[in-house]
Amino acid sequence: MAQQGSLEDFLAAAVDAAKKAGEIIRSGFYETKHVEHKGQVDLVTETDKACEELVFNFLKQRFPDHKFIGEETTAACGASELTHEPTWIVDPLDGTTNFVHGFPFVCVSIGLTIEQVPTVGVVYNPIMDELFTAIRGKGAFLNGKPIKASSQTELVKSLLVTEAGTKRDKPTLDASTNRINSLLFKVRSLRMTGSCALNLCGIACGRLDLFYEQGFGGPWDVAAGAVIVTEAGGLVFDPSGKDFDITSQRVAASNPLLKDAFIEALRQSE
Amino acid sequence: MAQQGSLEDFLAAAVDAAKKAGEIIRSGFYETKHVEHKGQVDLVTETDKACEELVFNFLKQRFPDHKFIGEETTAACGASELTHEPTWIVDPLDGTTNFVHGFPFVCVSIGLTIEQVPTVGVVYNPIMDELFTAIRGKGAFLNGKPIKASSQTELVKSLLVTEAGTKRDKPTLDASTNRINSLLFKVRSLRMTGSCALNLCGIACGRLDLFYEQGFGGPWDVAAGAVIVTEAGGLVFDPSGKDFDITSQRVAASNPLLKDAFIEALRQSE
Repeated sequence: MAQQGSLEDFLAAAVDAAKKAGEIIRSGFYETKHVEHKGQVDLVTETDKACEELVFNFLKQRFPDHKFIGEETTAACGASELTHEPTWIVDPLDGTTNFVHGFPFVCVSIGLTIEQVPTVGVVYNPIMDELFTAIRGKGAFLNGKPIKASSQTELVKSLLVTEAGTKRDKPTLDASTNRINSLLFKVRSLRMTGSCALNLCGIACGRLDLFYEQGFGGPWDVAAGAVIVTEAGGLVFDPSGKDFDITSQRVAASNPLLKDAFIEALRQSE
Repeated sequence: MAQQGSLEDFLAAAVDAAKKAGEIIRSGFYETKHVEHKGQVDLVTETDKACEELVFNFLKQRFPDHKFIGEETTAACGASELTHEPTWIVDPLDGTTNFVHGFPFVCVSIGLTIEQVPTVGVVYNPIMDELFTAIRGKGAFLNGKPIKASSQTELVKSLLVTEAGTKRDKPTLDASTNRINSLLFKVRSLRMTGSCALNLCGIACGRLDLFYEQGFGGPWDVAAGAVIVTEAGGLVFDPSGKDFDITSQRVAASNPLLKDAFIEALRQSE
């Protein structure tokens, strides 16, 4: 199909939308502490919905022929199929638990796939004022400055990040902590931030060396981060070592030097 | 002994010292990415030493009769005994792994004990520009604004923070991940930041609800944070439920409403 605008136009629009959504997140973030629990839950829902509406309306107005997949609309309307057409995949508020608690790892994540390939990515943390951006083939940036994945070559000196996930059944939780146990013998240390999109950005800017997560919410958690990692010289792949599938709710990322050792360590941890 | 100056004077001096050390940490933080590995190790050591010298010299000049305990001097000269005299307990750079990797949870921690009781506390994260301060009996503050521990009453809605630690022997690591497994069935989610002092400050400002760690470096990791938590209305205690012992390398913290349930959950996780 004919694209209305260049990739740079798409990125500029996504950045505008992310900044506006970021304002909503920021004002809610400092408010959650002052409302009782029921009010906190409402505030998350309201913020989530308000951000998604804002981002979708903003982008639909500019790119009426594009498709849209969002966490909120998918929750309401069922799974949306990812086609080959330009598709905006949006997580209006990644890190909702952090948002409620006031822990500063929250962000809006806006990715655009073309031919199902993550092509434009914007992740904005309005609390720390960090804007990660990338266009396929044109590099990745943090607040406008080029970023690159780490140059670490050894697992034992690598900083790993993963998440505890939201499932609390015994088989899932046991598998998750057994995997962590196995990996801790091999890496320098472990971080858990509570935001999948920001973990990918952490790999992209070299703050973190290794990331894996399974069972996260959906493609909106990874669509933007995937192109940011790739454009920063990192790799995004399935934790099994197979190709990354944006719809699979499984992701791993590292620099190219660590990938094989990381996959082997993940395999041994199963 | 006669104290030269009020608690406010001690706090003001500690804040000055922390800000100056923060400048050294900040400049090193953005430099680590640009040097090879050996250079990174040297940079950590140099930054650690430079910050400790700066803080100690600054405080010794103002309070020549006070005692001093620091991570660097203890590592060099062996354990320092904590007496009843006013004693500055300093971690010049908490979160050294984060510092090397560029992960923004790093801080300088400056605590003063009088009669072995944590009485003045300053924790400064120069990357996020967050200054946590407290004087015993006079409240706790983040960048000058009063803070308080969370009002959460249920474990299942609580955000837990702990650390993977630095020991990699099998008994320690198995015990650590078994404990995490047990606790994950009971809490909302888990974070790992890599800084003990900032975890305590997270409890103090209500971003985090539950914290425990065993086997950390020494009293410099907790001396400042302990008074900040207490003055924010939180509690600091031994993970067993016994009284907190600043020299024990064991710490737990929460708000008063969660303490009993947290201790019970920690006991069941052993």
